[in-house]
Amino acid sequence: MLSTLEEADRRHYFHPGTHAFDHASGALPPLIVDRASGIRLTDVEGREYIDGFAGLYCVNVGYGREEIAVRIAEQCKRLSYYHSYQGAGHAPAIELSQRLIEQWAPPGMIKVYYGMSGSDANETQIKLVWYYNNILGRPNKKKIIARDRAYHGSGIVTGGLTGLPVYHANFDAPFDRVIRAMCPDYYRRPDPAMSEARFTEQCVAELEALIEREGADTIAAFIAEPMNGTGGIVPPPAGYWPAVQALLRRHDILLIADEVVCGFGRLGARTGCERFGIAPDLVTFAKGLTSGYAPLSAVVVGEAFWDVLMRGSREQGMMGHGWTYSGHPLGAAAALANLDIIEREGLVQNAGDVGGYLLERLRATLGTHHAVGDIRGVGMMLAVELMRDPAARERFPADQRINARVVAAARERGLLIRALGTDIVGFAPPLITTHDDADEIVSRMAAALDEVLS
Amino acid sequence: MLSTLEEADRRHYFHPGTHAFDHASGALPPLIVDRASGIRLTDVEGREYIDGFAGLYCVNVGYGREEIAVRIAEQCKRLSYYHSYQGAGHAPAIELSQRLIEQWAPPGMIKVYYGMSGSDANETQIKLVWYYNNILGRPNKKKIIARDRAYHGSGIVTGGLTGLPVYHANFDAPFDRVIRAMCPDYYRRPDPAMSEARFTEQCVAELEALIEREGADTIAAFIAEPMNGTGGIVPPPAGYWPAVQALLRRHDILLIADEVVCGFGRLGARTGCERFGIAPDLVTFAKGLTSGYAPLSAVVVGEAFWDVLMRGSREQGMMGHGWTYSGHPLGAAAALANLDIIEREGLVQNAGDVGGYLLERLRATLGTHHAVGDIRGVGMMLAVELMRDPAARERFPADQRINARVVAAARERGLLIRALGTDIVGFAPPLITTHDDADEIVSRMAAALDEVLS
Repeated sequence: MLSTLEEADRRHYFHPGTHAFDHASGALPPLIVDRASGIRLTDVEGREYIDGFAGLYCVNVGYGREEIAVRIAEQCKRLSYYHSYQGAGHAPAIELSQRLIEQWAPPGMIKVYYGMSGSDANETQIKLVWYYNNILGRPNKKKIIARDRAYHGSGIVTGGLTGLPVYHANFDAPFDRVIRAMCPDYYRRPDPAMSEARFTEQCVAELEALIEREGADTIAAFIAEPMNGTGGIVPPPAGYWPAVQALLRRHDILLIADEVVCGFGRLGARTGCERFGIAPDLVTFAKGLTSGYAPLSAVVVGEAFWDVLMRGSREQGMMGHGWTYSGHPLGAAAALANLDIIEREGLVQNAGDVGGYLLERLRATLGTHHAVGDIRGVGMMLAVELMRDPAARERFPADQRINARVVAAARERGLLIRALGTDIVGFAPPLITTHDDADEIVSRMAAALDEVLS
Repeated sequence: MLSTLEEADRRHYFHPGTHAFDHASGALPPLIVDRASGIRLTDVEGREYIDGFAGLYCVNVGYGREEIAVRIAEQCKRLSYYHSYQGAGHAPAIELSQRLIEQWAPPGMIKVYYGMSGSDANETQIKLVWYYNNILGRPNKKKIIARDRAYHGSGIVTGGLTGLPVYHANFDAPFDRVIRAMCPDYYRRPDPAMSEARFTEQCVAELEALIEREGADTIAAFIAEPMNGTGGIVPPPAGYWPAVQALLRRHDILLIADEVVCGFGRLGARTGCERFGIAPDLVTFAKGLTSGYAPLSAVVVGEAFWDVLMRGSREQGMMGHGWTYSGHPLGAAAALANLDIIEREGLVQNAGDVGGYLLERLRATLGTHHAVGDIRGVGMMLAVELMRDPAARERFPADQRINARVVAAARERGLLIRALGTDIVGFAPPLITTHDDADEIVSRMAAALDEVLS
């Protein structure tokens, strides 16, 4: 069975984010997952792994939740699909919208539009802010500020918002309305002696200079993850968000909070906005919204913004935007069951508790390792940054792919974690992870690190 | 219950393709669907409807299929999610890829990439053709020819490919790499005396002039639905596809077949490509792939094109493109169960048989109506085009929204069909529709037409 599956895989399956030649040739070792339960996966050869990255930081409630499967199956039998165009709908999407606004979104939000992925939701956000400024008679206020090392998707436009070169190469990205602000990475501050407060001032001054150089009347929005994810899991420095928000408000620049990774408990708070005191105009949810059980994303719209969309429809007729699967009943049913679990089991709290413990254990176990430069995290989003010489702040050569080697060694020990950039190892386990699981994750990581960098 | 649901709907649910103000104010009559089985829906007030448009021409096998629900639930319990990055995968996505290549895609295809929607799949297509020409050292060969009245999605880029003004307005679309060819609508030919053969020649000559004006060395691809859908359900005139393909090949322009609507039996053939003798370089599938039971789309790549992607990875490393939910196991499981049904029940054949009968009955019943200009269709994709004076080819004023009034009257009679443009009424029922169902559809349509245009 394995050889047949592997052969069909190499011959016909075009994987995302995968080296095409190495996969087709078999140089890339396959990982064909057969089943999963809790935080553990089993592959078709019977090997078991702890999933230390919750899929792609999405399986917040863990795998194999019977009640989500049951809810999906019941919905599938009752109403497997209907579209939501021209005001049509169904109870699951309506109930989910109300629940997201009343219980999960930051204050001041009013409406929820659905897509299937973070990429398509951020695409919708950009369409909405352009539409908004067209309706307000400001056709030149269209640029989007995105940060270096951000991840906002891999569509043509969203891949351009993403601030990681691999998502630009050979795709003619980014498009010309993207302008780039710095990544607020205090660990990589240019001057090691600089205080955190001083570094925050520098981030904000750089943003202000960018706005002045480009002209606030040409800038529609600032999009950002409350806490950077795929760019390296980088907590914002103290004071960053209050200062950035004050600056944006002063220049009438909308704030889009990309909560795709942070949302639904990952940071030990309902959202990254809650965690860092952010009051956005628009919010993007995905991943944790369904814990990956079904593709679903949400664009959450603030009240003042929505008023302009209403005005647009009165003045210019229906806005032409929509997906066939906007508000898909299976996705909505999965989300409702998923939120039931998160709320009933107190997983937001658990993410904070066990995440804090995991950070403490990583620091206690790896903090003195000669090749570990930084260990950081908020809730269940943590990173170990490798350095050839931490004291001298000398990085490993990028072509050594040092973090990928550690991740491969961890996989040999039954731990799936993720290489970010060329130096960073990321951890984002399901929010159900226990203290014992955390110990096991640290133990396997330590062994992997010792093998590669003894 | 209804009033609470309706209120929550108006307050918090941001619907796709819906007039924002009319929905929020309650001016738009709600349709809150409670359950569905076969080709029939029931709303929360107990009213039953025949779904004459299969959702949005996607529910090919009909609603409430127990075996799809069971397959989805089993997959959900076994492996609810895992990503497919860096060569990871699972059996459902691998088996589906093999089955699509071997049994459903046109000849010469080799690889399948998955998304969640037709929009995201067409977005991937455009990224791939730009990447392809960058790898081949032809950075200026990037324009995309799309046709007037085409529908290819509603993202920023795909909405620009779409040739319908409502998808452009206030979104600054289309982007500057789109060039537009005419819609090959023989019924709307400029000169009523023109033969179909002569009209085809004119379409091809117009395309050739466009290519020469822009320069073939600046044009990457031609994207088209084998048969136009949302633009009005317009069968291509005889000889159109052979002549277009010969022209594209002569100018080294790739052909992307957008099979989102046509694929999986709707035209009484496996694909629109099969129906019209098209040999594409790239194919987009969605909708009928899962009959709407789960969000899934597929980008199917031809062998020669794939060789360039492999070369790209060898020369430049991994291509940075992917979605978290690429190849989602629930979508793949739904697709496999859906294809089982289509194959076992002979639904491709049934679409041709009952579609032909439906066309014949529409013509027999409405053909002499004073306001019917044209009745056309292929398989289960049919249209009635209204005209104030068919003999004089005088259309109704657009602001009368004559087709929307007929569609509303049909809904009052328990038939859901769709207004396309301002004059066209579209029919695209599930492929399981019977002869008796077809009679009922025609009878309700006739009554609706008589009410609005007696």
